[in-house]
Amino acid sequence: MSETPTVDAEVRPEAEDQSETFDRMMREVSDLLERHDMAGLVDYVQELHSADIADLIEQLHSDERATFIAATRGILDAEVFIHLDEIVRDEVLEYLRPEELAAVVSELDTDDAVYLIEDMDEADQREVLAAVTPEDRAALEEGLGYGEDTAGRLMQRDLISVPEFWTIGQTIDYLRETDDLPDEFYEIFVVDPRHRPIGSVPLNRAMRSKRPVRISEIMEAEPRIIPVDMDQEEVAYIFKQYRLTSAPVVDATGRLIGVITVDDVVEIIEEEAGEDILRLAGVADDDLFDTVLSTTRTRFTWLLVNLGTAVLASIVIGLFDATMEQVIALAVLMPIVASMGGNAGTQTLTVTVRAIATRDLTSANALRLLNKEFLISLINGVLFAVLVGLVAWAWFGVPLLGGVIALAMIINMVIAGISGMLVPMALDRLNIDPAIASSVFVTTITDIVGFFAFLGLAALVLL
Amino acid sequence: MSETPTVDAEVRPEAEDQSETFDRMMREVSDLLERHDMAGLVDYVQELHSADIADLIEQLHSDERATFIAATRGILDAEVFIHLDEIVRDEVLEYLRPEELAAVVSELDTDDAVYLIEDMDEADQREVLAAVTPEDRAALEEGLGYGEDTAGRLMQRDLISVPEFWTIGQTIDYLRETDDLPDEFYEIFVVDPRHRPIGSVPLNRAMRSKRPVRISEIMEAEPRIIPVDMDQEEVAYIFKQYRLTSAPVVDATGRLIGVITVDDVVEIIEEEAGEDILRLAGVADDDLFDTVLSTTRTRFTWLLVNLGTAVLASIVIGLFDATMEQVIALAVLMPIVASMGGNAGTQTLTVTVRAIATRDLTSANALRLLNKEFLISLINGVLFAVLVGLVAWAWFGVPLLGGVIALAMIINMVIAGISGMLVPMALDRLNIDPAIASSVFVTTITDIVGFFAFLGLAALVLL
Repeated sequence: MSETPTVDAEVRPEAEDQSETFDRMMREVSDLLERHDMAGLVDYVQELHSADIADLIEQLHSDERATFIAATRGILDAEVFIHLDEIVRDEVLEYLRPEELAAVVSELDTDDAVYLIEDMDEADQREVLAAVTPEDRAALEEGLGYGEDTAGRLMQRDLISVPEFWTIGQTIDYLRETDDLPDEFYEIFVVDPRHRPIGSVPLNRAMRSKRPVRISEIMEAEPRIIPVDMDQEEVAYIFKQYRLTSAPVVDATGRLIGVITVDDVVEIIEEEAGEDILRLAGVADDDLFDTVLSTTRTRFTWLLVNLGTAVLASIVIGLFDATMEQVIALAVLMPIVASMGGNAGTQTLTVTVRAIATRDLTSANALRLLNKEFLISLINGVLFAVLVGLVAWAWFGVPLLGGVIALAMIINMVIAGISGMLVPMALDRLNIDPAIASSVFVTTITDIVGFFAFLGLAALVLL
Repeated sequence: MSETPTVDAEVRPEAEDQSETFDRMMREVSDLLERHDMAGLVDYVQELHSADIADLIEQLHSDERATFIAATRGILDAEVFIHLDEIVRDEVLEYLRPEELAAVVSELDTDDAVYLIEDMDEADQREVLAAVTPEDRAALEEGLGYGEDTAGRLMQRDLISVPEFWTIGQTIDYLRETDDLPDEFYEIFVVDPRHRPIGSVPLNRAMRSKRPVRISEIMEAEPRIIPVDMDQEEVAYIFKQYRLTSAPVVDATGRLIGVITVDDVVEIIEEEAGEDILRLAGVADDDLFDTVLSTTRTRFTWLLVNLGTAVLASIVIGLFDATMEQVIALAVLMPIVASMGGNAGTQTLTVTVRAIATRDLTSANALRLLNKEFLISLINGVLFAVLVGLVAWAWFGVPLLGGVIALAMIINMVIAGISGMLVPMALDRLNIDPAIASSVFVTTITDIVGFFAFLGLAALVLL
């Protein structure tokens, strides 16, 4: 190893991390836009990766975006639009003329093109479809015909398939002579005479085999087959579980009609996990780039539901106003019981929602896990009961008050543990996304149980 | 398309979804274990994919696991252990003798083998290292030498690299004649005389090129290079951003020493997103398969922090006990103000945490987004102020009480919006994971501000 200064100097730029690189690009673009140096902008942008260009467009102000698109008209790679956040994309596509849009769509693979036009309103969609070639139109219409969030929308129609009796030599010659090959592919599919997939040959295996070797000798039989109407979450699960790079997609008769590759699945995995995080907090997807009014509206809905549950809790408190008037310490302490229950419930429900998403929670272990949650919440309930009981006693000098809050704490934390697990499981059974609705149910339960148990016990014991 | 019944019958089994397939496998394995049919179990398990076997082991009771491992001793694919959840894996590896463990480790690729032994205690690790071949030992020790969560731990050392002056023909001959090739590879790396990566040739492009074509003619220059000490989150970001299938890893002198493939990255993407979900709720990773006591302990810590903040809020309430004694309606209504603030704050902080993770929040747009959050919380604050003010007035017949709660609501929701954004950003600056600590800070702020604003204003205005 010859560690010379020159080598080192060449390596150094890699040390800049991605955020720093991005900040640098952003400053450069902002500068060029400010100086109205459109030729410079075009030169600079042409050096960048389409994913980075998309990120830059997302970060621009709305008026800068218009200028940016006008300046880079015609030179932007079609891929840029695929990488854009949905809300920004809608805005940017408005700036393109129908024939420009058609050019973008024609440049893309089927799955990406469908992804681009699927959310357009019908008039715009028709305009684009009218402007592309008949073959592209047919492919797009077929793609749009598959249900949203299904394998059909994800798949790429271009693929390589060969019969099993071919040799490696024949296959290589075929690849070398055919012009109309997909841009990227990782394996060669093997089909029977009815065009049903019966195996696949990873490219590296094909490359290291000699010309006379038959495909049937080196193919991996029994490929994991994806039906065209399979839900995309299911597709993502199969890719993750079996570490697939690509998989064949078949129609209802079992014929090979497309291929899904891992890069599409990476996006879905991230999307789904991100969705769950936001949904647990009552936020719609794509919140960040949305307008103030639209964001306010979707968040309002969730807060309104929360207001309902908060008023419900207040009604429960109101039942005991006479009790509180006599022992004002109850009013001071009651949020502790509700808050601890809410947090314990949130812990359990989050673990449960996540376990449902990753399929670690099954009918085989549900009862065992429920039992575990019960034990955990009982132990923590008792521990915090002792702690809070002592605090309350010391604070207000009334031992019985400590006893009341301790008992209420145990009750509420056990209820929190059990409902934190049962609520998401029940919602999942009812085919409601547990990430969306669980936390409002669980915290309502822990608020009401918390206030009712504490104030109710106090009314019985202290008065 | 000839839709005959036979074709249909062959396709039907695909219609069973993955959860149903898994439930069926689980019943089969439980049955075999119950009937002590170990020969049947071995036969059945050998038909299954290693990822499914791992899931089955996770679902078994602890005593069933011991039986399962004893029965399948020696026939389990080494990959099974890689797919296992960490806590279950530790348990299962205890059942293996050192030489069995060494056999498992030798069977795996470097990155997987390092992953398997990195969490073992030192004595076990030494035992395994002593039992493998010297070459394997050297590779493992090198792997363990890289920092945890870095590219070095993820990379596979086996790769294909060729000089740029080779032809496709030479490359293919080299692949056909070399026995010691990696199991899977997606591209051929091109290196300079100092073994630094200067390009790559995707396999599909190599396959469709004729024998005399030079590598330099078809290679993609300027590959995305991963330094060996790069953090895995950064690696995952680069793979996602540029839709990579594999990428070269270099040491400090820029020499090509390994390759990272997309399947490793898929796991990291899922892991990181899953971690954030759990951390936002105050749960440690791997909670599901952990023991009751260990889970109770980690959740206890978080609940203890929460108890501290709840007591803090109670102290604030306690400052106004005289006020509440005179107007008990305050005690009834005060949780509404705190709860609405907490929820609004959680919405904002979740969006912020997510945007930091996906790198959509940058220094370029931070101020703009803060301004947006301020507007959103102001609008929603005013809307809910009117709503809650009217409810309070109607409920207790005191217009001034409505005014007080309305004003407190606006204050608390605006504070919620601003702190929901500033707290995670500040934590990120301090290199603290915003997913872990944000929500406790933000809800403490909204509780204290909520109670203080409402009760304080009431003390000023109503008495």
